[in-house]
Amino acid sequence: MKSDERSEAIFLLNWSQATVNISIFPLRDFPLINPGDPLADIIVDELRKMDLKDRDIIVIAHTIVSKAENKVFDLETITPSPFALEIGKRQEKDPRKIEVILRESSEIIRMNDNVLITATHHGFICANSGIDKSNTPGETVISLPDDPDSSARQIREVIKKKLEKDVAIIISDTFGRPLRVGTVNFAIGLAGIAPLEDIRGKKDLFGYELKSTIIARVDEVAAAAGIVMGQADEGTPIIIVRGVEYSISNESARELIREPTKDVFR
Amino acid sequence: MKSDERSEAIFLLNWSQATVNISIFPLRDFPLINPGDPLADIIVDELRKMDLKDRDIIVIAHTIVSKAENKVFDLETITPSPFALEIGKRQEKDPRKIEVILRESSEIIRMNDNVLITATHHGFICANSGIDKSNTPGETVISLPDDPDSSARQIREVIKKKLEKDVAIIISDTFGRPLRVGTVNFAIGLAGIAPLEDIRGKKDLFGYELKSTIIARVDEVAAAAGIVMGQADEGTPIIIVRGVEYSISNESARELIREPTKDVFR
Repeated sequence: MKSDERSEAIFLLNWSQATVNISIFPLRDFPLINPGDPLADIIVDELRKMDLKDRDIIVIAHTIVSKAENKVFDLETITPSPFALEIGKRQEKDPRKIEVILRESSEIIRMNDNVLITATHHGFICANSGIDKSNTPGETVISLPDDPDSSARQIREVIKKKLEKDVAIIISDTFGRPLRVGTVNFAIGLAGIAPLEDIRGKKDLFGYELKSTIIARVDEVAAAAGIVMGQADEGTPIIIVRGVEYSISNESARELIREPTKDVFR
Repeated sequence: MKSDERSEAIFLLNWSQATVNISIFPLRDFPLINPGDPLADIIVDELRKMDLKDRDIIVIAHTIVSKAENKVFDLETITPSPFALEIGKRQEKDPRKIEVILRESSEIIRMNDNVLITATHHGFICANSGIDKSNTPGETVISLPDDPDSSARQIREVIKKKLEKDVAIIISDTFGRPLRVGTVNFAIGLAGIAPLEDIRGKKDLFGYELKSTIIARVDEVAAAAGIVMGQADEGTPIIIVRGVEYSISNESARELIREPTKDVFR
């Protein structure tokens, strides 16, 4: 490397240290996960390639968690109920998939000829209970993990034990949204990070207290990671987000679910 | 700088070039904007401090756009209508602020003793028509810009002309959301970037076509920028997001508004 290239490298490094606040990058070449795989151990092995730092946030697409935890349903083994058959006919969809959606739900929130929006047993409101066909071989569908917080905590603990790094974990899924077109990545499971950042009581530039600003920090981070999950090659389920200020917490992603009685859109 | 520091700098630079996909950093020390200020020129002058690159995305908090465009209302000059007086009484809020909210709205979407959710004249659905008290001196409130896309396009053109860089602009605001607790930054004005990224037709790992995935790319980017807007010192309204793959487009942020008849939550 020539001397001027070296100076330029040092200049760029200094510049980037001075100005880069947050960086987002994928854990490349992550292996395909199969049902029953020891996911936390596999993640730890892959993270050894990276220069992981304390307070990094690791965002994990729920699909690999669900697969490792056997939340894969072979449609050949599913017998739809009369109700699932009726919805399947109305929506022109596989009634066996509808049956899995209903089994994974606690409540139907909206339903018409096109959409089936449910509350999952965790309380998350999303289309089709988060059941998805893609990224799974054969006549199978994949659901959300049973307890995404618990999955996240387990991965966090194994990283802490084996790599001696104190990181936060967000397990994410891509949901549609009321009112706005297009999907965005959301947090559905957490470990070691507060879901909400309460900036009430902070003063603005003119000394007023900001009244009602509770920021959904983990949804912001999940959305940010979603950019890289989406634009990287297929099979990039793990994204590292570095440089985010956050509060360490044991709270659940369920803190993000608006209480039904306080939700004017429910 | 010692030789080993130099090698480390070069190593770190190479490492960061290899792995950092997206970086997010603020335009620091941005001056306070006053009504009537030539915002695009001020932004260009401040951006000269930065190593701006083609395809950078510049996310701008709507407040500085609204202020420059005189969308600041002195409550002393506002006479509330009988309806605004009634809502103000019911919600224990300043009826003059309610009056501004109603004037900036095209439709009331939800209203009870606590919340007033409207469609703005642009069609965005948010609390209080996006009217905010904070960051404005005296008895004043600030609204959304009249045409955020047009504001974004003007800033983009001035940057192109004076700095010869081809960037995208997102004007953003922080909204609450149906179903989930906490606010997140959303895109309300766009220039030079497609609001939605359509990945239908892409195949997943097993060769299935992904069925219904239209990603709200600009909302992901606005949310990501919101992390830095929120965690930086007060008065950090401009964030640069680098490394996002996006389609250049003249489409409006209004493409993100779900058609009322297709919105099961409206």
